[in-house]
Amino acid sequence: MTFIEDLNAIWHKNDSLLCVGLDPDIRKIPSHLCDLETPLFEFNRAIIDRTADLVCAFKPQVAYYSAVGLERDLELTVSYIHETCPGIPVILDAKRGDIRSTAEMYVREAFDRFNVDAVTVNPYMGTDTLEPFLSRSDKGVIILCRTSNPGAADIQDLRSDGKTLYETIAYKAANEWNRNGNVLLVVGATYPEELREIRSIVGNMPLLVPGIGV
Amino acid sequence: MTFIEDLNAIWHKNDSLLCVGLDPDIRKIPSHLCDLETPLFEFNRAIIDRTADLVCAFKPQVAYYSAVGLERDLELTVSYIHETCPGIPVILDAKRGDIRSTAEMYVREAFDRFNVDAVTVNPYMGTDTLEPFLSRSDKGVIILCRTSNPGAADIQDLRSDGKTLYETIAYKAANEWNRNGNVLLVVGATYPEELREIRSIVGNMPLLVPGIGV
Repeated sequence: MTFIEDLNAIWHKNDSLLCVGLDPDIRKIPSHLCDLETPLFEFNRAIIDRTADLVCAFKPQVAYYSAVGLERDLELTVSYIHETCPGIPVILDAKRGDIRSTAEMYVREAFDRFNVDAVTVNPYMGTDTLEPFLSRSDKGVIILCRTSNPGAADIQDLRSDGKTLYETIAYKAANEWNRNGNVLLVVGATYPEELREIRSIVGNMPLLVPGIGV
Repeated sequence: MTFIEDLNAIWHKNDSLLCVGLDPDIRKIPSHLCDLETPLFEFNRAIIDRTADLVCAFKPQVAYYSAVGLERDLELTVSYIHETCPGIPVILDAKRGDIRSTAEMYVREAFDRFNVDAVTVNPYMGTDTLEPFLSRSDKGVIILCRTSNPGAADIQDLRSDGKTLYETIAYKAANEWNRNGNVLLVVGATYPEELREIRSIVGNMPLLVPGIGV
């Protein structure tokens, strides 16, 4: 099954559109976990066990693991989700983007090493840098469009030929990049008007909508 | 010393503006190295030993290590450069970019875990996402401007208020983001006209110019 098919199935099975982030900050997790060999995994496991019937996806943010050299905890987390919650896809939040040869390495990192079902990517470098991701038709490619942070407008709202950059990204995503039906967009919940505009461009393309916590 | 001071010193000492990439593809390195515990580090060590008097920086690309779970090789590589070539800065090519709390984790990854002197970052998400990097005044922050790849124009040449996006990035880099004097830009050697335009905007700001190999 493809990522989009997985999503459709779990939306109905769990009656949920909620994606739960797994961004364990080693400085903030309970101290009794910090003595363990895999503290971030143990923290995640408690969240996964308690939310697996309520979510449509889990989304670990890679920086929380790589900052402290605990990629092993990320590997264990993804394996645990696949084993205990079959059908719930895992999104690696990594916002990767680089020239083609390097992008191919990031594809390996996400899909071979970490064994996730989708990854977030950054479109700034252009179409050819997205191709190694887009060609993986079984996986989801979630492209930054209008992000949730306070400074999102600095670059993404620049207007060219009457369209903002985020609208241009949405048009390209819908009309150019989605030939394998595996493209999604990141659109922040913190900007509902922009979210509405983007929805009108991309039809029923699934959107990853962060910023609910804020 | 700051990253820019380090650069100035090594430019003069080695009479070189050459930055050597350390992007070891595990599928392409000599087979006798693949049997070793740290194959990518051993491959890099041979390059470092042979070029240390000819370069002004080394630049490992993180994806080549993370794709195959060999972050340890990257750690050893950076340590080896610092120990055997004092004064030669190390740039982590990672093109990071994310919301502030995550960007702080990427800062830890680059500067605390991997102990590099500078890191490449992606400006798509806006000023607030660059701040955790920019506030490290001892370190270099190398922002993508006009990249070297074939599709660079897709997004970076979009024109807003008469300026291309890469020109806007250059203006922001020079006038807004460089208050700590630690900003550089990535500008591909493959686009000499754009390189000239950007140079005219940013004065003597150092540029990382990839694409010479191509």
